Amino acid sequence: MNYTLNTEKEFDLIAIGRACIDLNANEYNCPMEETMSFTKYVGGSPANIAIGSAKLGLNVGFIGKLADDQHGRFIEQYMREAGVDTTNIVIDQEGHKTGLAFTEIKSPEECSILMYRDNVADLYLAPSEVSEEYIQKSKILLVSGTALSKSPSREAVLKAVNLAKKHDVKVVFELDYRPYSWNSAEESAVYYSLVAEQSDIVIGTRDEYDVMENNKKSTNKQTTSYLFKHSANLVVIKHGVEGSYAYAKSGEVFSAQAYKTQVLKTFGAGDSYASAFLYALVNGLSIENALKFGSASASIVVSKHSSSEAMPAAEEIEQLIAERA
Amino acid sequence: MNYTLNTEKEFDLIAIGRACIDLNANEYNCPMEETMSFTKYVGGSPANIAIGSAKLGLNVGFIGKLADDQHGRFIEQYMREAGVDTTNIVIDQEGHKTGLAFTEIKSPEECSILMYRDNVADLYLAPSEVSEEYIQKSKILLVSGTALSKSPSREAVLKAVNLAKKHDVKVVFELDYRPYSWNSAEESAVYYSLVAEQSDIVIGTRDEYDVMENNKKSTNKQTTSYLFKHSANLVVIKHGVEGSYAYAKSGEVFSAQAYKTQVLKTFGAGDSYASAFLYALVNGLSIENALKFGSASASIVVSKHSSSEAMPAAEEIEQLIAERA
Amino acid sequence: MNYTLNTEKEFDLIAIGRACIDLNANEYNCPMEETMSFTKYVGGSPANIAIGSAKLGLNVGFIGKLADDQHGRFIEQYMREAGVDTTNIVIDQEGHKTGLAFTEIKSPEECSILMYRDNVADLYLAPSEVSEEYIQKSKILLVSGTALSKSPSREAVLKAVNLAKKHDVKVVFELDYRPYSWNSAEESAVYYSLVAEQSDIVIGTRDEYDVMENNKKSTNKQTTSYLFKHSANLVVIKHGVEGSYAYAKSGEVFSAQAYKTQVLKTFGAGDSYASAFLYALVNGLSIENALKFGSASASIVVSKHSSSEAMPAAEEIEQLIAERA
Amino acid sequence: MNYTLNTEKEFDLIAIGRACIDLNANEYNCPMEETMSFTKYVGGSPANIAIGSAKLGLNVGFIGKLADDQHGRFIEQYMREAGVDTTNIVIDQEGHKTGLAFTEIKSPEECSILMYRDNVADLYLAPSEVSEEYIQKSKILLVSGTALSKSPSREAVLKAVNLAKKHDVKVVFELDYRPYSWNSAEESAVYYSLVAEQSDIVIGTRDEYDVMENNKKSTNKQTTSYLFKHSANLVVIKHGVEGSYAYAKSGEVFSAQAYKTQVLKTFGAGDSYASAFLYALVNGLSIENALKFGSASASIVVSKHSSSEAMPAAEEIEQLIAERA
Repeated sequence: MNYTLNTEKEFDLIAIGRACIDLNANEYNCPMEETMSFTKYVGGSPANIAIGSAKLGLNVGFIGKLADDQHGRFIEQYMREAGVDTTNIVIDQEGHKTGLAFTEIKSPEECSILMYRDNVADLYLAPSEVSEEYIQKSKILLVSGTALSKSPSREAVLKAVNLAKKHDVKVVFELDYRPYSWNSAEESAVYYSLVAEQSDIVIGTRDEYDVMENNKKSTNKQTTSYLFKHSANLVVIKHGVEGSYAYAKSGEVFSAQAYKTQVLKTFGAGDSYASAFLYALVNGLSIENALKFGSASASIVVSKHSSSEAMPAAEEIEQLIAERA
Repeated sequence: MNYTLNTEKEFDLIAIGRACIDLNANEYNCPMEETMSFTKYVGGSPANIAIGSAKLGLNVGFIGKLADDQHGRFIEQYMREAGVDTTNIVIDQEGHKTGLAFTEIKSPEECSILMYRDNVADLYLAPSEVSEEYIQKSKILLVSGTALSKSPSREAVLKAVNLAKKHDVKVVFELDYRPYSWNSAEESAVYYSLVAEQSDIVIGTRDEYDVMENNKKSTNKQTTSYLFKHSANLVVIKHGVEGSYAYAKSGEVFSAQAYKTQVLKTFGAGDSYASAFLYALVNGLSIENALKFGSASASIVVSKHSSSEAMPAAEEIEQLIAERA
Repeated sequence: MNYTLNTEKEFDLIAIGRACIDLNANEYNCPMEETMSFTKYVGGSPANIAIGSAKLGLNVGFIGKLADDQHGRFIEQYMREAGVDTTNIVIDQEGHKTGLAFTEIKSPEECSILMYRDNVADLYLAPSEVSEEYIQKSKILLVSGTALSKSPSREAVLKAVNLAKKHDVKVVFELDYRPYSWNSAEESAVYYSLVAEQSDIVIGTRDEYDVMENNKKSTNKQTTSYLFKHSANLVVIKHGVEGSYAYAKSGEVFSAQAYKTQVLKTFGAGDSYASAFLYALVNGLSIENALKFGSASASIVVSKHSSSEAMPAAEEIEQLIAERA
Repeated sequence: MNYTLNTEKEFDLIAIGRACIDLNANEYNCPMEETMSFTKYVGGSPANIAIGSAKLGLNVGFIGKLADDQHGRFIEQYMREAGVDTTNIVIDQEGHKTGLAFTEIKSPEECSILMYRDNVADLYLAPSEVSEEYIQKSKILLVSGTALSKSPSREAVLKAVNLAKKHDVKVVFELDYRPYSWNSAEESAVYYSLVAEQSDIVIGTRDEYDVMENNKKSTNKQTTSYLFKHSANLVVIKHGVEGSYAYAKSGEVFSAQAYKTQVLKTFGAGDSYASAFLYALVNGLSIENALKFGSASASIVVSKHSSSEAMPAAEEIEQLIAERA
């Protein structure tokens, strides 16, 4: 089974949301207290997905707000050089800062993130900074859940979704739940369900769907049954090392195993999964193959130091799939 | 043409949103600087509509949050004695205050309101305080736009709308736009359009629809054409003294003239209109007659000192309509 | 013993701090829930003291910030007509509101106040709005403790005190403690002690001195011993119906009984006390007589409906003292 | 001329204020956009002064609040191992973060700092967390101006100064002005002058004294004349490469030249100056020699990569002074 997209559109995918800085510990298997130096990468789920899918060859744009400082300028330049169209990135004029994530890798199982997300520029994207003309040029609008956590970014995303639906742009919702940014689980549930009901494709982990459903602990069947009553026609639910499932509104269910690898850290798995999965859909591969693309890409990124810089080329993904077939 | 409602439900109407205090100048035709005393009434659009429709005989409930002080207790008691079910009113535990509106009546054409709306209790209604069991018991959920202006009241209303749609409760959206409460016109447009798209009936002035459409200055035809693409099947647009129109999705258009009266002040016109209009719909009157009920009720209230206390009985409305026929 | 003031100065007293609106229940001995109408008066401790001492005949100025609305204009006009120089009152340009106090008089012993003090204009007085030229023209700068509760009013007062000391203006500190406005008792203690240490005369209730000393429960002797180590040379401590004491740095102690009266409500007692006490000092009366003036004025105001409007003339005070001698 | 300190006290110096993280670019002479890795150091003026003077051999304590995370734990451990008593450091329980300073060294003349100071733990130190028992044990309380920029840290410092004066602890005020943290220059002036008037020794650059005087552009003579009217008896004014001056209340003036060096960056110059200057005073050196110690220490630190880690031992300072004599 394939997924049909409007082929008349200039961009394959436009992502909206945060782009920030990861500061990854140069020492592995070490508590951060003892880490003395950090390497800088572009981070943030929608930025990573944009970079990852641009590296795979998609025609990608990005809507977001960056701090007017050295970190903001680094991000814009990095994304542009990775092939992402940055013409709709807005520069913050009110002194907000770039979000930071210091990563700590005590062991492959014990990774943690120390976040700086107070008053970050990405959450100040305003509805007026979202261009109808730009969004309608894309096959897919990729929305990241974290962008819904605060106003005015929340309203900017709600407007973008509204515009996408008006112009036959498929809305792909990557749940990307970060409790840190939200006031309450209940507030998260309100906005997650609101946007999920308006989305064509929803992608997330089982835990993230539980957040969307205000912790009702549904089965995949209950979750998909709920979403299929609204706009969704494809729902991807990831179960970590146990693999992932894609449910189609038609009733078909597809699954893929996770590819074993030498895991260095778990960061970046979801973003690389989404970029490769969407790359496959855009290129007309079957949903079954798209799941394999997602799994293979995630497997490659978790074995490397960064999330964005480590995003693989299509050949690497294809080679891994072929090797493990 | 009639409007079909689910007759199995216990409540005719449950309103959600603010209930506050009006302090009406005891002197008429006088600047407030010279007003030395004020009379206290219950106020706030959804509270007024609940009181007005309860007085007309509907079975009415209310969801809202009141300050834990003398003003809050006065409001609860007044609404209860007017026949409104107050079991789902929540008492604020965090020291928020009751909203206030000092009214100034310089002349019938020059009325103004001095609002106290900073950190008012009604805007702290939380999603967890909205009961699914309660909402599903009603034929109609009446939503007032001002309740969308701030979190967490905004999320409480979005949740209530979601629950209403899940349980076949008609969503009636009274636009009730108060610029004072909003951060920006653009933010208003995002939430007004979001809720209007999910509503069965939308009621507002032409100016309020312009806010919903982010000041595009549409014609009534353009506005209704947009709304009928979504959930709405009845759209009421009020043009002040020029009368009001009801547009049905079926294509029918109904209109009613405003009833001339000795205007004392313009406050309360919209709330009395909505309560009488909905009373008529619930009682199976034609939409044309419902418009007359709305106009007649508004005409009665603008000739009296208060908004809530002045809400007429059904006989008064019927008598006015008969007299002017 | 008399108190020496610089007689070269144009103003007898300049007060700094809040001026707001009292809304006094028209019904006495009645819970506010049942009160249906309210009468409007100017209120706020420093405004009341300014009005009270102007009515007694002092040459009085006022520094404060008023809302740009009907309530603000009423206050300015009332104070001006009461004889207070209002040229240094600033009009707020940022939409802040006038503080409100709804008073409830259940019985003479059970009076309560329902305050509206969120984002009120008076607390937005900025240091730049305090004029060195103006302050140096006064014999006395009267500071009210509540003005220290929030920035930037806090900094405006700290600047005013600094300027007063620079120009040989006596600083009189009316403790006027309102827990509502403060973040914590500890924060109150920091600023109360900071300003008390810089003041020439301190006036307050025993409870208010306890707040200043971070609830150490000192005796009057301990409190005055602490204050006399700094700038103070006269400390007035009020013990309610048990009367009041004035401690001079020289070691002399004076006391006065409270005058019995038909108490209607307790509001306004402290403000009328301070205005009459300072009137007496400025007019060269002995400290002992000044205490009597304070007590007599308080006795008159607590028997009347308002705080500001009820401020007595000098003859009324003198007559009461004579009658009770 | 020597400076007399109470020799009975257990600690030579207790510093109060911020301790945070510097992230210094590993590449020199490079815009931060191109810097790919950063090294982590303890930073923040009072923390640097505490570390610097502990390394020189003083008995030093620190009062401050640290984030409950990896950065906070690193800071506590580093300071403790450098010999600073950390028993009065408090761990934040409300999720505040450690302040960050990314440093960029484009050239010795073009250094800039990218600060993360929103809701940082150090500014949440509360008055109740300042121990009277601890402060009274020290010869010197070192106050850094930045700790006055926000509540409740502001009140914690005002309380500490009050306690120091009560217990014969000399208050040394390092002006340490960082415009980023303040609401307005005028607010800064209010608190800078308030604390400077209560301090025994004030240390700052000419520009920082201008901030204290609300940009009046005084001469050193005017500034010292103002401060000597209050508590100060020693005022150090630094003029960058032109050297520094110490003015004693007795009228004596001392000066020292800056020591030329290969400047790598300008950060840390003031902190190393203060720690060596105070080390010399505590050890009974003349004020003239103390100025030399300050200059020499600054000269050493500006030639190295960090501020805290680079703090010199006494022998290095003495050797530099001897070489350049």
